[in-house]
Amino acid sequence: MQPPRVAVVPEVAAFADAAVAGGGVLSDPAGADAIVWSDPSDAEGLRKVLATSPARWIQLPFAGIERFVEAGVITPDRTWTCAKGIYGPATAEHALALLLTGARLLHEHARRTSWWPHDRAIESRRLAGRTVLVVGTGGIGRALARMLEPLDARVVAVNRSGTPMPGALLTGTADALPDLVPDADFIVLAPALTPETRHLIDASLLAHMRSDAWIVNVGRGGLIDTDALVEALRARTIAGAGLDVTDPEPLPDGHPLWSMDNVIITSHTANTARMAMPELAQMIKENVSRSARGEELVGLVDPALGY
Amino acid sequence: MQPPRVAVVPEVAAFADAAVAGGGVLSDPAGADAIVWSDPSDAEGLRKVLATSPARWIQLPFAGIERFVEAGVITPDRTWTCAKGIYGPATAEHALALLLTGARLLHEHARRTSWWPHDRAIESRRLAGRTVLVVGTGGIGRALARMLEPLDARVVAVNRSGTPMPGALLTGTADALPDLVPDADFIVLAPALTPETRHLIDASLLAHMRSDAWIVNVGRGGLIDTDALVEALRARTIAGAGLDVTDPEPLPDGHPLWSMDNVIITSHTANTARMAMPELAQMIKENVSRSARGEELVGLVDPALGY
Repeated sequence: MQPPRVAVVPEVAAFADAAVAGGGVLSDPAGADAIVWSDPSDAEGLRKVLATSPARWIQLPFAGIERFVEAGVITPDRTWTCAKGIYGPATAEHALALLLTGARLLHEHARRTSWWPHDRAIESRRLAGRTVLVVGTGGIGRALARMLEPLDARVVAVNRSGTPMPGALLTGTADALPDLVPDADFIVLAPALTPETRHLIDASLLAHMRSDAWIVNVGRGGLIDTDALVEALRARTIAGAGLDVTDPEPLPDGHPLWSMDNVIITSHTANTARMAMPELAQMIKENVSRSARGEELVGLVDPALGY
Repeated sequence: MQPPRVAVVPEVAAFADAAVAGGGVLSDPAGADAIVWSDPSDAEGLRKVLATSPARWIQLPFAGIERFVEAGVITPDRTWTCAKGIYGPATAEHALALLLTGARLLHEHARRTSWWPHDRAIESRRLAGRTVLVVGTGGIGRALARMLEPLDARVVAVNRSGTPMPGALLTGTADALPDLVPDADFIVLAPALTPETRHLIDASLLAHMRSDAWIVNVGRGGLIDTDALVEALRARTIAGAGLDVTDPEPLPDGHPLWSMDNVIITSHTANTARMAMPELAQMIKENVSRSARGEELVGLVDPALGY
């Protein structure tokens, strides 16, 4: 079988290397069997390239391909793949960073300009032996459980079906949250945002949290009722919050969350374009290799559904 | 064999539970075979208790027992154990927190009061794929290597002998530092402070670091030439520093490190008295169990040497 001719546009060395490692040969778009499109936002650029390319398969970067769908670029006469399902580890690493911030009070240390009084040190904690309640057991939750294992944290999980998550001591459904929340030292939110999960963390669930517990959100801002969170943080009925995502987002200047001493906000940087490059390169290698063997590709997009 | 009679003074429930779990029975000091002394600073209190106790074995908390040695409490007529060798995991967890701070720029986020500009997000990094140079392969270094494994970081180690550290891609001696430092994205310092390691990181080695590299110190402040570090951070020939320990310590108010935007200082909180309790309880259980079986204890102190 001929090795697939692959064009990487715009050129990214790591993706070209991955295509070659997968058994492809590099090509111009005009002579390519496949195009690896590396710009997550330039739908018009892709349209222009496709106009003169016979490529049968297009690999898109990133999971969210709304721009390409809306621009009408995703047509059913070609095979489309996107980078869905590979973002767990980068975001889980950020969730771990925010957990350690809450445990080790890094946000307080970062804001100090003098040595911490000795009697405060006792408030610093380890994750070891603590219970981390992971809400959402997709790629992020599963990767986080693997990262928490050598830290000796107790992982408890919640998902829609209650299907056990590897690495969790027990896995419940969202109905179990009022029972699980009071035992949690840390709660991590990483489910998809759906009508069912919108404001999953509301005043009622916040009231079940311990006064020394932290909440970390690396999912979507809308998972939390922001006003209720502000109230709980202000009244110190919970200990703190590490928020990569907020509602609204961007969080406007002057919002009360910006000035709270028990909050850190990381401006949706858990998973940047650059961070996912290793996994995306691996996916490109895998798909070029599958293409060379005539096998079904991973991350297939349904042009009719648009994802 | 009779179960050992153990007195825990001052009383700590977790240590009493550990003694019982190890096969001991709780006792007053006056009728005890062994005393678990739980106050890391009160040498005089221990002297008073010992005056009326027949205990043959004394378990001390913590590794640093200088106060007890200086007070002349450590006498060769009894067997002494201390908590040496069990502090790796707590300190390694803090090193991981500081590594993630450098990678994810948590110190910058903590200091912001408005959403991070989009063009800054690209500077946030993952540990995945990065090279972490771990200097010192004792309990801290080995525990850190285990924690970095699920994060897919590349771990390279340095120790006195060059003996390979589990989890490290390669292990060199200090002589190899000038060759290893230029490849490191992060350098973690966790060796003992000795005449050989004092100012191990000086102007010369700092000059070998990459401009995007971070240095994390969870060992002792004297491992780094502080003035040279300040100069490198100011000139931005290195990217940043996460310092749990400093020289001098406490770092005085107004020291230039306090006002640098590329520095976080955590005031020697990597391993607090409270944090080590699980490992210390485990050690107590183990030693009571060994005592019951007539086996040699772990963490034995040589009264002549004083450690």
